[in-house]
Amino acid sequence: MADILIKDGFIITMDAQRRILERGSVAIEGDKITAVGKDVEERADTVIDARGKAVLPGLINAHTHLSMTLLRGIADDMPLMEWLEKKIWPIEKNLTAQDCYFGALLGCLEMIKSGTTCFADQYFFMEDVARAVEEAGLRAMLSHGIIELGDPKRRESELRAGEKLVKTCHGAAGGRIQTMFGPHASYTCSPECLMQVKELAKKYKVGIHVHISETQDEVDKIMKEYGKRPVEHLDSIGFLGPEVLAAHCIWLTEREIGIVQKQGVKPVHNPVSNMKTASGVAPVPEMLAAGIPVSLGTDGAASNNSLDMFNEMKFAALLSKVHKLDPVAVPAQVALEMATINGAIALGLQDSIGSLEAGKKADIVLVDLQKPHFKPLHSVISHLVYSAVGSDVDTTIVDGKVLMQGRKVLTLDEDKVLREAQKSSDDFLARGAGKK
Amino acid sequence: MADILIKDGFIITMDAQRRILERGSVAIEGDKITAVGKDVEERADTVIDARGKAVLPGLINAHTHLSMTLLRGIADDMPLMEWLEKKIWPIEKNLTAQDCYFGALLGCLEMIKSGTTCFADQYFFMEDVARAVEEAGLRAMLSHGIIELGDPKRRESELRAGEKLVKTCHGAAGGRIQTMFGPHASYTCSPECLMQVKELAKKYKVGIHVHISETQDEVDKIMKEYGKRPVEHLDSIGFLGPEVLAAHCIWLTEREIGIVQKQGVKPVHNPVSNMKTASGVAPVPEMLAAGIPVSLGTDGAASNNSLDMFNEMKFAALLSKVHKLDPVAVPAQVALEMATINGAIALGLQDSIGSLEAGKKADIVLVDLQKPHFKPLHSVISHLVYSAVGSDVDTTIVDGKVLMQGRKVLTLDEDKVLREAQKSSDDFLARGAGKK
Repeated sequence: MADILIKDGFIITMDAQRRILERGSVAIEGDKITAVGKDVEERADTVIDARGKAVLPGLINAHTHLSMTLLRGIADDMPLMEWLEKKIWPIEKNLTAQDCYFGALLGCLEMIKSGTTCFADQYFFMEDVARAVEEAGLRAMLSHGIIELGDPKRRESELRAGEKLVKTCHGAAGGRIQTMFGPHASYTCSPECLMQVKELAKKYKVGIHVHISETQDEVDKIMKEYGKRPVEHLDSIGFLGPEVLAAHCIWLTEREIGIVQKQGVKPVHNPVSNMKTASGVAPVPEMLAAGIPVSLGTDGAASNNSLDMFNEMKFAALLSKVHKLDPVAVPAQVALEMATINGAIALGLQDSIGSLEAGKKADIVLVDLQKPHFKPLHSVISHLVYSAVGSDVDTTIVDGKVLMQGRKVLTLDEDKVLREAQKSSDDFLARGAGKK
Repeated sequence: MADILIKDGFIITMDAQRRILERGSVAIEGDKITAVGKDVEERADTVIDARGKAVLPGLINAHTHLSMTLLRGIADDMPLMEWLEKKIWPIEKNLTAQDCYFGALLGCLEMIKSGTTCFADQYFFMEDVARAVEEAGLRAMLSHGIIELGDPKRRESELRAGEKLVKTCHGAAGGRIQTMFGPHASYTCSPECLMQVKELAKKYKVGIHVHISETQDEVDKIMKEYGKRPVEHLDSIGFLGPEVLAAHCIWLTEREIGIVQKQGVKPVHNPVSNMKTASGVAPVPEMLAAGIPVSLGTDGAASNNSLDMFNEMKFAALLSKVHKLDPVAVPAQVALEMATINGAIALGLQDSIGSLEAGKKADIVLVDLQKPHFKPLHSVISHLVYSAVGSDVDTTIVDGKVLMQGRKVLTLDEDKVLREAQKSSDDFLARGAGKK
């Protein structure tokens, strides 16, 4: 007998055949999916009526800085360096472990309410982020953001902090939390640092979460320092490989796309953030055409200003179309792949999440289609990408546990999280003001 | 004594000073706003508690084809001409007055639920659209879409249809419905047709709703036929003027922007549709810099696939930023202006809507800010543009009448509208299939 039976929904499997079952069911036992099909006749402790709802794999946000939800809307519409130097970095210096915990809780709450079940994070105070993830019930791939600027002392302490996170949190929360090393970027980490990270990642059998080619300025810097473009530079020092999760990947030449493909690097597209910071447009159609499983992320809420992966899918599909002046670029189906199965591949979790198949973890979201913006209903995939928003999610399940049902979050006290996040943000802004 | 008092909200006035009142009130008597301020101490029949809510002018969707909500998601991700010729136009041939009525009702429902209070429409069976608008309680500027392709007979009948709409519907629904003439575009209407429209619009003292320079293909066609670019061509025949509402305006040269500015033409930016059909990016920052009050529209739901003006504001702000590689282009405040006061100016309704000021019509929406994606709260404007979605709207008021409160729509039977729209769409698709 199943623990949970999700019955009579539009099942979007995202399996190898990308099957859609118009009236299908998903059975869950413990943390796993045990059956997906039209004729699942299991009895279950809990039956979830999915009539008029889409049932899809939980969305995977493959690049974010979760605690930055606390910086949402604090500064917008500024040149990137001014924004970082005058606003974000001074504020970040004031962030405490508790701020990061409350920011992470707020981010977890927003993700549960918008259908994201797993995310890859790179920031500070990551043990506190892990605590928030454990309480919220989400799945996460956490990394400590390493910035060393060629300073050997700082490198040592940062590498130890990264290693500590891996040691203490990898496999935590019943396996829901995994870890990576998080060297920030090739312009903030020396080749020595990057290669020590590479060794550590190999030692601990974990991945590496890094930013690559986000801005033209970054490309110029790396060209000036190393005489090579970022991907070429990282390739030349032996840093790249299939364990590398690479956010942005905007300013890539054809040759660099070839390197990314050959080395099995996993690029994460962040269309909203890239548009908001005016960084540029990643060559997503070209990467997909090269067989690269491009995934999707929101980046931090400070440069988005949302963690809504439904919104992100729409932006991903539309940005490539207008950039290439090609309405066929990144169809809805592909945008949904980027946010589900490609995200799983990017995080090395394709055997456990990213599609609805027997044997995989039960990370599932239900979208309520009984709304004006989903009518008429002819193509569920089109509606999920072009018409849906996060608040259309009715039910969120992770690891077989219902985190939200009927939009009521069961793992967190929503009002309390909102209150604490506001207070935390007010406090660190006041602390910042006091220091001036 | 006021009829309605909206109390203690974040009042986003969008008045000339763009005042924001952190804890302010709005008093309504009949269809009008009678007071806006911090110290409005009126008693009222109905008091709406706006604590924790933003109170802003109803959003104005300055270019749509409302009944096309019925074609939502029927065909996506196709080259524009294939999409039109193989999908949209054959379907449109099968549309009946009743289809357009149900499509319009569905569109009205979606707009009420996403904070749009007024829209400019161009389509067919517009008397039936007017009927839906009257029932829904929205404000609208309706026009009959004229396509004559140089055929004098067709021109005559289309002009009469346009004139009939103006005669029967202008000022209907207690003044909530106004009309325009709707010549489709310069590649579907001859100069003779356009100039007859111009004369009729003058005679009836109404505006003109047209598409200009949506695609490069359109520019090529007009260049080939008239030896001039679209704006130049329309200017040379004497068609342009302040009464012209011009959707898209994408492929404009600097010289054409100068003409638009000089003639007082009102361009409507449609970022989502332009991205989805891969038509291009309108020179919005350039037009704004020239002092042109660019407004905002969703276009039809078939090419969006949503009527959510909050989503549209985010796209408008972000598309210009990435296109110009300038993070300062189209700030949040400007995007909100495009969707409110500029929309009012574009429709010639700036004396009655577009801002919250005593004497203006009471077209007001309340946005519930007590949600994770609005925390922390430091800048309401930033949140409304970058974090909000239509479903954050709690209350929608038009002409002093509450159309939705607590997300419950009071003027329409939501379930019935959804059912009828689905049935109507299934029926015309079946009719189309039968004819093949």
